[in-house]
Amino acid sequence: MKLIVTKDLQEMNEVAAQHLLGAMHTQYRTNIAITAGSTPKGVYELMIPLVKDKEYFDNVHYYNFDEIPFKGETGYGVTMQNLNKLYFDPANIKREKIHVLDWTNYETQDQRIAADGGLDFVLLGVGADGHFCGNLPGTTKFGDLTSRVAEDATPDMVQVLLNEVGGVEEKRPDFYVTMGPKSIMQIKKLVMIANGTAKAEIVKKLVEGIVTEEVPSTLLTTHPDFTLIVDEEAASLL
Amino acid sequence: MKLIVTKDLQEMNEVAAQHLLGAMHTQYRTNIAITAGSTPKGVYELMIPLVKDKEYFDNVHYYNFDEIPFKGETGYGVTMQNLNKLYFDPANIKREKIHVLDWTNYETQDQRIAADGGLDFVLLGVGADGHFCGNLPGTTKFGDLTSRVAEDATPDMVQVLLNEVGGVEEKRPDFYVTMGPKSIMQIKKLVMIANGTAKAEIVKKLVEGIVTEEVPSTLLTTHPDFTLIVDEEAASLL
Amino acid sequence: MKLIVTKDLQEMNEVAAQHLLGAMHTQYRTNIAITAGSTPKGVYELMIPLVKDKEYFDNVHYYNFDEIPFKGETGYGVTMQNLNKLYFDPANIKREKIHVLDWTNYETQDQRIAADGGLDFVLLGVGADGHFCGNLPGTTKFGDLTSRVAEDATPDMVQVLLNEVGGVEEKRPDFYVTMGPKSIMQIKKLVMIANGTAKAEIVKKLVEGIVTEEVPSTLLTTHPDFTLIVDEEAASLL
Amino acid sequence: MKLIVTKDLQEMNEVAAQHLLGAMHTQYRTNIAITAGSTPKGVYELMIPLVKDKEYFDNVHYYNFDEIPFKGETGYGVTMQNLNKLYFDPANIKREKIHVLDWTNYETQDQRIAADGGLDFVLLGVGADGHFCGNLPGTTKFGDLTSRVAEDATPDMVQVLLNEVGGVEEKRPDFYVTMGPKSIMQIKKLVMIANGTAKAEIVKKLVEGIVTEEVPSTLLTTHPDFTLIVDEEAASLL
Repeated sequence: MKLIVTKDLQEMNEVAAQHLLGAMHTQYRTNIAITAGSTPKGVYELMIPLVKDKEYFDNVHYYNFDEIPFKGETGYGVTMQNLNKLYFDPANIKREKIHVLDWTNYETQDQRIAADGGLDFVLLGVGADGHFCGNLPGTTKFGDLTSRVAEDATPDMVQVLLNEVGGVEEKRPDFYVTMGPKSIMQIKKLVMIANGTAKAEIVKKLVEGIVTEEVPSTLLTTHPDFTLIVDEEAASLL
Repeated sequence: MKLIVTKDLQEMNEVAAQHLLGAMHTQYRTNIAITAGSTPKGVYELMIPLVKDKEYFDNVHYYNFDEIPFKGETGYGVTMQNLNKLYFDPANIKREKIHVLDWTNYETQDQRIAADGGLDFVLLGVGADGHFCGNLPGTTKFGDLTSRVAEDATPDMVQVLLNEVGGVEEKRPDFYVTMGPKSIMQIKKLVMIANGTAKAEIVKKLVEGIVTEEVPSTLLTTHPDFTLIVDEEAASLL
Repeated sequence: MKLIVTKDLQEMNEVAAQHLLGAMHTQYRTNIAITAGSTPKGVYELMIPLVKDKEYFDNVHYYNFDEIPFKGETGYGVTMQNLNKLYFDPANIKREKIHVLDWTNYETQDQRIAADGGLDFVLLGVGADGHFCGNLPGTTKFGDLTSRVAEDATPDMVQVLLNEVGGVEEKRPDFYVTMGPKSIMQIKKLVMIANGTAKAEIVKKLVEGIVTEEVPSTLLTTHPDFTLIVDEEAASLL
Repeated sequence: MKLIVTKDLQEMNEVAAQHLLGAMHTQYRTNIAITAGSTPKGVYELMIPLVKDKEYFDNVHYYNFDEIPFKGETGYGVTMQNLNKLYFDPANIKREKIHVLDWTNYETQDQRIAADGGLDFVLLGVGADGHFCGNLPGTTKFGDLTSRVAEDATPDMVQVLLNEVGGVEEKRPDFYVTMGPKSIMQIKKLVMIANGTAKAEIVKKLVEGIVTEEVPSTLLTTHPDFTLIVDEEAASLL
């Protein structure tokens, strides 16, 4: 595990973008998974002008690693809608380069990725509770591959799902899908970002070296190529 | 995780040797850790005539990953004496290529390995209880780097230590040292061997995908480059 | 460049097989190109029992790197017939794992390989004249990709082609196809074998470090991962 | 070979910096060689604020690949003075991370690099005459490792050397040293930059695929991981 402490959020974004861009500049196909959510927003803002319509990145294939359906709807779920808005649309990424994981194909996600030669790189965020992707405490086990998590997985899951669809009860799904801890550990290079004082506790746990399913992301600290990039606020308890 | 089921012990030995030899044929320095014990005996018997006095393997550096001292003695401990007998001496490996871990330097083992560029390959055995290296159930945690395990770590540790020194109470040490689960996970490629019906239960657990500290080796199934080579007997419960 | 001198042909075969088997034991797909001809016969004899019907090698994809058609015939040419006989048939390699280069598709060989993620490994022989694959002196340039070589390429090419089809004039083609020097240089790891006193002169040239199109294989000595395995006779002028 | 055409010099600088930064973000030591001269000036200007005093780049070791002495002087030569000014000093790179090649140690440069585990990355410029490093047409051969080039190597070498020391005859050396074509080909990843219409002819030659010692950099087009980054002006003849 390599820990990178940056002086502020801007530098965290820059260093994360450096990792992503480095992973994208390869001779042959490279497979990368990227995270939705609020943390990577600044990373994608830096990357969009560098990536948009650049043919020299045609070797890059993208994967999402979790998805939350809108109840009763087909089409993209919460994660892909967010990724489209944050990055894929403004960066004008060709649709044939985006390998969508959703509720219709999650059971074959790990096999399809293996057939594509494995994932080379992932950019991850981390929750204050230690979750990564959809691996919230109590939902998946370290040994799980891509999984379906139901609304009864944890006591507050119904509320979590409601929040994810903007609090609209009619759109609340009764499950989501996510690549599991074992799926993510199969990726060749893991990069995780965290910023702000709200993440200081979880960053402390990651650095301390305890590995426990109650804090799912602690597993990643055992990966042979794991880089954790945090700003000074997130590093304030170290 | 890649599972290789061989028809018998002989094939298990051959396939393990193929992995080792493949890892040793590099342009520049390669760092490999190898296991002592009874399981790899046949692997080393195959390798010795292929490796002995071969200058083209001068790029290979060897590491042991645990050590049990003989009480009141200096010099090599149980593991290195065993490795010397099984492989290093008959293969005539130069002493400057062997990087000894023992009770005098275990606290810097992980830093020294990092300074050497990391380990590229490890050959591991597995115990019926799921232990690997000196990571017996109850002794180390998933997040541990190289550690000292004392005689009071588990109820039967005194007996374990006694057995390791041939049942001679005067030689029984009150601790041993081992690279921890996290240390082993840092290695680029992991290969584990298991043979015989006595290993069928643990092999079943490894393949089933449960990851728990009660069965330490289950962590390794999450590694991005983990190969498990077992003979038909060890695979009999799959 | 790494030079490996073995004590005899048997050891040369073993060391070459060690390289091949090491390259074949990967988690995901691996793409390897292998050579026909008399030199590798012993290598394949060693490998066939280790590879035949082994599911754990299903990740291996094979490529031939040159082909000589039989005039007026469709079906396999000289190289593939030879590879079938020496290795693919006795090792029972599945046809869907063999990516055939021939006169109908040579113009897209380099693009197809790039789309497959590039070649990871090649086993090469070398001629006394310094040729490798179908890159005979005077036929291709260092910068050539997969090429068609016509019967008028060199003064003795008609005779070369006649010999290749067993001296039967009716079967003599007026061209062959070969991956070019640049195609072979794109491969991640190159291993070349040579044995016997007839190869001592060319081995000397390869080791001396002169690089000239008159001795095509000298280019390979500049590759970042090139291993030359020779027996003592082939090394006798060093 | 991967060709990247950028819309202008600024983008060429950015894309080159992306490659460098990507190569620098590794878990363990990484060895990179960088070029002096006018072409990379903008690359280093982008990198200096991103690299200066950043502990997370302490894993990066730097190498220069050629050197021109000032006659009668000890201390740094033309290349290192230039690199110090352009990058090492403003980026505040620690001196123990800089592995200086000069006239006192060039004969062991290739062995020292091999002992360091090889170079992982190089940033190269290219001359209008096709030279790279100190490999001017007529001075070195494709098969040369690190070499000493004397003032009588080519008809205009005395003038070249005079220009390099600012036209001051008293400072003109009678030789320089350079890593040879074969030395550079041993590096795992090669990145070359070229901008402006003055480079359009040489870029055309590199892309056309002719490989000849008269245009030394054409050899690099055969390397398995070679990226050529050029601005639109340098690409204007493609």
